[in-house]
Amino acid sequence: MGIGNALVDVLSHESDDFVEEHGLARGAMMLIDAERAEKLYAAMGPGTEISGGSAANSMVGIASFGGTAGFIGRVSDDQLGGVFGHDIRAAGVEFTSTAAATVAEGGAPTGRCLIIVTPDAQRTLNTFLGASAQLGPDDLDHDLVARAQVLFLEGYLWDEADAKEAFRRAARGAHDAGNRVAFTLSDGFCVERHRDEFLDLIEHDVDILFANEVEITSLYQVDDFEAALQNVQHHCEIAALTRSEKGAVILGRDEVHVIDAHPVARIVDTTGAGDLFAAGFLYGFTHGYDLGIAGRLGTMAAAEVISHLGARPETSLRELARPLLDD
Amino acid sequence: MGIGNALVDVLSHESDDFVEEHGLARGAMMLIDAERAEKLYAAMGPGTEISGGSAANSMVGIASFGGTAGFIGRVSDDQLGGVFGHDIRAAGVEFTSTAAATVAEGGAPTGRCLIIVTPDAQRTLNTFLGASAQLGPDDLDHDLVARAQVLFLEGYLWDEADAKEAFRRAARGAHDAGNRVAFTLSDGFCVERHRDEFLDLIEHDVDILFANEVEITSLYQVDDFEAALQNVQHHCEIAALTRSEKGAVILGRDEVHVIDAHPVARIVDTTGAGDLFAAGFLYGFTHGYDLGIAGRLGTMAAAEVISHLGARPETSLRELARPLLDD
Repeated sequence: MGIGNALVDVLSHESDDFVEEHGLARGAMMLIDAERAEKLYAAMGPGTEISGGSAANSMVGIASFGGTAGFIGRVSDDQLGGVFGHDIRAAGVEFTSTAAATVAEGGAPTGRCLIIVTPDAQRTLNTFLGASAQLGPDDLDHDLVARAQVLFLEGYLWDEADAKEAFRRAARGAHDAGNRVAFTLSDGFCVERHRDEFLDLIEHDVDILFANEVEITSLYQVDDFEAALQNVQHHCEIAALTRSEKGAVILGRDEVHVIDAHPVARIVDTTGAGDLFAAGFLYGFTHGYDLGIAGRLGTMAAAEVISHLGARPETSLRELARPLLDD
Repeated sequence: MGIGNALVDVLSHESDDFVEEHGLARGAMMLIDAERAEKLYAAMGPGTEISGGSAANSMVGIASFGGTAGFIGRVSDDQLGGVFGHDIRAAGVEFTSTAAATVAEGGAPTGRCLIIVTPDAQRTLNTFLGASAQLGPDDLDHDLVARAQVLFLEGYLWDEADAKEAFRRAARGAHDAGNRVAFTLSDGFCVERHRDEFLDLIEHDVDILFANEVEITSLYQVDDFEAALQNVQHHCEIAALTRSEKGAVILGRDEVHVIDAHPVARIVDTTGAGDLFAAGFLYGFTHGYDLGIAGRLGTMAAAEVISHLGARPETSLRELARPLLDD
């Protein structure tokens, strides 16, 4: 069960100069307001629209493995909201959106993420949250949360007060029902904005932590990955840490798994790599596989998603993963 | 200068069974109403939204070669209309849309084409015309039409009475200004619906005809391509006929050029092949190249567009075509 920002991605290929010229945060995520979104979109080349949103992508990945997944997030009653809802349901994820105020009634339109893909396949995210920023405790389907083995929350939620409250209540609900809470740090800047609260969250509310190398070193304000590993292993039960082409490291209570990156013929667009790693790992974890296999399912799913444009799988992850699965 | 239906494509990969089960016209274009569009969309898997529209794709292709192109077509004042307008302008095509009635005012939403891509990379088109069906003579920018060396019209326009009238007036305007009129037959079923009128149009109003093998044999109701060639060579000044993997044949007044298909590493999605062939041909034709080179620019542009998802070029056609160009 994922909770996160419900966004439609608008992807365009641009030069490195474009990123510099527009003052974008290369490789990271920046929040932008409606006006800035309009200006940036006007400057971008022709786009491709594909549903996105970090935790939403992870849930779609789990469904592609054959797992059962649900998603809570806010869209508006507009065309992009229709696209988001269609795509996530068509991927087999349970999704019910609370009726939001329409744009005509003064509400915000469905959120979107303007994604600049540079020639090195790196992506730079510029998010106009729109309706997704209105996510609050009332959007929680407590029954859905209680039914889920794992509640998966994205760090991006921490930028809005109501979403934070929804996050906290959902985590409490999950633990009360005896379930696990997983959390992704989402982005380096996101960690910088909320470091102290994230450290506190991980200490008290998080069972499974996802982070990449930049995020985990930023969290503990250390210079290298080894130092971050030492910090995190005393901090939460399971940490699944990704390192791009260096693969991943999974830390359990008394175990460490070093996972190689899965081979990719050609990296086209790295959007969604972390989201799909989480999908593979969580599918493995919730289906009785050990942490090492779960990590390999993660790197495999990440490899699929970076081989094409967009942050959701284009091929059945279940088929791809068949050699690793029992059934 | 192109006139055609302004559509956003919604592409999804489906099995051959899906095409059969939903009674779709494999490899062809079917017009569908709002209700059928909703049902088909609900049945489709997760989609990718990319701006489309046959003549619009051709104009984007011409701009990608470095040519000057404009487009006339109708969108609504909604999010998909915004996407269409952004994408075509970002591609460097002049586009002004007449303000249409919004959906709130009882107008139709921006049109879309639901495109099923089967495992053989073939595409099956299902078009809900929406606002694009409201194109009429009032949408014509006569100055724009008069300025264009070639007016390019799509056969798909012939399905709506007002669009037909706009088509006729634009053709007259182009000829009055001493320009050429190019016309694509668009689709086999489209030819069947309008054969007599198309034959008459070609006789009196068309200087350059585009068609594929299915369309041209259907037009003259002959069994083979050779017979169609004999018919068409007496019927209009220039005919540019495409034959998929067999390349193209260009007929001029006293010349015939047989063009090989351009090699493609992997065919991903044939959507836009004909549109981009027309783009390359028209770029060559309007820039002083002979019909043989124009044909080769056409097959080259078609090869680029079928190597990825969507009907618009992802790489600069100017760069690709550099070995064939003078400047």
